[in-house]
Amino acid sequence: MPLIAINFKAYPQSMGELGLKLAKFCETVAEETGVTFIVCPQQTDLKFVASQVSIPVYCQHIDAVEPGSCTGHVVAEAVKASGAEGTLINHSERRLRVFDIDWLVKRCQSLDLDTIVCTNNVDVSKASAALHPTYVAVEPPELIGGDISVTTANPEVVSGTAKEIKRIAPDVKVLCGAGVKTGEDVRVAVELGTEGVLLASGVVKATNPKETLYELVKEV
Amino acid sequence: MPLIAINFKAYPQSMGELGLKLAKFCETVAEETGVTFIVCPQQTDLKFVASQVSIPVYCQHIDAVEPGSCTGHVVAEAVKASGAEGTLINHSERRLRVFDIDWLVKRCQSLDLDTIVCTNNVDVSKASAALHPTYVAVEPPELIGGDISVTTANPEVVSGTAKEIKRIAPDVKVLCGAGVKTGEDVRVAVELGTEGVLLASGVVKATNPKETLYELVKEV
Amino acid sequence: MPLIAINFKAYPQSMGELGLKLAKFCETVAEETGVTFIVCPQQTDLKFVASQVSIPVYCQHIDAVEPGSCTGHVVAEAVKASGAEGTLINHSERRLRVFDIDWLVKRCQSLDLDTIVCTNNVDVSKASAALHPTYVAVEPPELIGGDISVTTANPEVVSGTAKEIKRIAPDVKVLCGAGVKTGEDVRVAVELGTEGVLLASGVVKATNPKETLYELVKEV
Amino acid sequence: MPLIAINFKAYPQSMGELGLKLAKFCETVAEETGVTFIVCPQQTDLKFVASQVSIPVYCQHIDAVEPGSCTGHVVAEAVKASGAEGTLINHSERRLRVFDIDWLVKRCQSLDLDTIVCTNNVDVSKASAALHPTYVAVEPPELIGGDISVTTANPEVVSGTAKEIKRIAPDVKVLCGAGVKTGEDVRVAVELGTEGVLLASGVVKATNPKETLYELVKEV
Repeated sequence: MPLIAINFKAYPQSMGELGLKLAKFCETVAEETGVTFIVCPQQTDLKFVASQVSIPVYCQHIDAVEPGSCTGHVVAEAVKASGAEGTLINHSERRLRVFDIDWLVKRCQSLDLDTIVCTNNVDVSKASAALHPTYVAVEPPELIGGDISVTTANPEVVSGTAKEIKRIAPDVKVLCGAGVKTGEDVRVAVELGTEGVLLASGVVKATNPKETLYELVKEV
Repeated sequence: MPLIAINFKAYPQSMGELGLKLAKFCETVAEETGVTFIVCPQQTDLKFVASQVSIPVYCQHIDAVEPGSCTGHVVAEAVKASGAEGTLINHSERRLRVFDIDWLVKRCQSLDLDTIVCTNNVDVSKASAALHPTYVAVEPPELIGGDISVTTANPEVVSGTAKEIKRIAPDVKVLCGAGVKTGEDVRVAVELGTEGVLLASGVVKATNPKETLYELVKEV
Repeated sequence: MPLIAINFKAYPQSMGELGLKLAKFCETVAEETGVTFIVCPQQTDLKFVASQVSIPVYCQHIDAVEPGSCTGHVVAEAVKASGAEGTLINHSERRLRVFDIDWLVKRCQSLDLDTIVCTNNVDVSKASAALHPTYVAVEPPELIGGDISVTTANPEVVSGTAKEIKRIAPDVKVLCGAGVKTGEDVRVAVELGTEGVLLASGVVKATNPKETLYELVKEV
Repeated sequence: MPLIAINFKAYPQSMGELGLKLAKFCETVAEETGVTFIVCPQQTDLKFVASQVSIPVYCQHIDAVEPGSCTGHVVAEAVKASGAEGTLINHSERRLRVFDIDWLVKRCQSLDLDTIVCTNNVDVSKASAALHPTYVAVEPPELIGGDISVTTANPEVVSGTAKEIKRIAPDVKVLCGAGVKTGEDVRVAVELGTEGVLLASGVVKATNPKETLYELVKEV
């Protein structure tokens, strides 16, 4: 069964109560279909959502600092305390220093938090895999936010990345982080060697998000 | 009546459920004494806390971006949606560009969110006041986190800043952002021309935070 | 006599030997006309250019760190040692934290280096003036890099800023940092209350930069 | 013959004319001994030094932006135009995002500029090697700036890194980036599997830098 992670980003459609409602939709579809859904609420909603749903909740970003005098930062320990089970790291909209990615992956491991490191091409995917996160999510820039789907556009970026990562770090799992819109895309992403997908606007900005969730899992 | 703002920072003592408990203590003391308490929970706890206390909740930091595709950022609209009433800006542990402070202050005004811009000396206080936030909180570096109290160490930094700010921007209120430990400090801070105080470790890391809260308001 | 500062940016047309050639053009026109030209070469060319021209040379950006173990940073002391006489600070393409602008202005003053703090609107100009740089250069975003000239587009941004700055910090001089293309623009900029202009692409990317320099000073 | 790279950092001892003098010392010792010396002058001195010495000159840091409207940034093309032959990337005092390291390495390759990517441990070294720079320079934090030498302190960090890098990217050469003070250290660094060393304060802050240079190459 594939994994489907939904990044809520900072869209108006996923703020506060709307974010909770969206997470509840994912919970319902997860229960009905057996597919694993991970939700990544907005930073300020993390504990609010995590304390009200039973599916895994991930943070969208954490800062490479220790708990203490660091006003306005999100530390791994606070993510853990919120009840979340993991975090995105190095999303294309929140790029991090390689030094900090290394630090964060190790910090999260010590707290038993999963990590999804986002990358933009084969080389950066290999570099990230060398740091041993739980997942590497490949987001080829040409697929981000556009209408091009991973099933039609060159699928070699995804399958090639999956192959290279297995070679360097066989323990690291791969997600398809862009170009996923339909249930067919989810199926193909898995066929290309990934464990699942990470998507955002396709669900969050959908006219009927719940319907979109059902659509995504229909070929599973 | 002075205003007492408590910055929870990212201390282990203020994470998740502990943060809610601390906010509840502040709520109790506020109700019993009539003093205005503002709490600034950790980023990931914002809506969780704001939805469970009746006193004003502020965010510790917001990012100068609009709602949308900005994974891992905290936008002003999300702070508003969480039920919070304001935010710290430019804390000494999260310094911002002057360009962004200007943008954030205006954005918050349009959303009816209060702003506390933190500063480190008289010149930066004047510069910040020129941007018309709700409050400027002066944190002289020599008073931060130490044992020196504003009542004993040169109080001119605080009174001088208050005077200069009134001259440049009479609508901007001043807070004393460091060197406050006791009820006497709170009283003196107000006598020096401020509306109140912003403090952190003195309360959050106290063996008995509730007792400390009572101590802070005893000379009011 | 107005001051004309030329920001070389990182254009191919102003790199290395081409940058020196451009600085030499400015030197020639300055000598022939008596107008003060300031040149801001690319970071890596600073001492190379400063050691070969007699007109004032400014750096494009400096970092808010002290000399020492700070690989890859430009410290004020190195700018001084290169023979330069000042620096731009907070250019729209290199925005800085208000805390650092304050530090840098004071550091430069102690080394007798002039400072031009760039700003984007009236409020940020006032904030910057409160830090007492030598100059504030106003760059209204609507005028940057476009075809709109300060003489035709609302001149109130410039004259209003000049007036407000005089009120807050009478010692701070004002430059017009955008919308200047012609000799008429230079004249008008001075009439609006500035000491001169800061410009870039209009000269650096000109087909015939020397001719453009003569054009700029023709109404002086 | 090993390679010895000297990072001038932003020390007062290596600014402007002093930097040129130091580079000339390296040139003299290089000519007399046949050892390859690379000098990394301060950012503002790059072309000034590069145009006056015959040994390879590298920049200390470059920015991941293209030539154009990027005031105050150092672009790879400007480094090339200065006559330099390469650059440090991701020094411990100027850490970069993995995304940018990837971009910079490729940009430099296209301009025939060498790259030395600095790293802090085995994992980050492997990650960096996956991006195929010319060199990876390992700087174990426990050896930076201290009195501990790589010959006495655990040499496994260096030999282990060299081995791992050969496995992932056999084309990438390794430098020992910390803990080198004496000629014996240089010899041992090479025996541990590196191509040479990168050092800074040991030479730049020496009472007699020229003598130190001779000392470094005496066991070669």
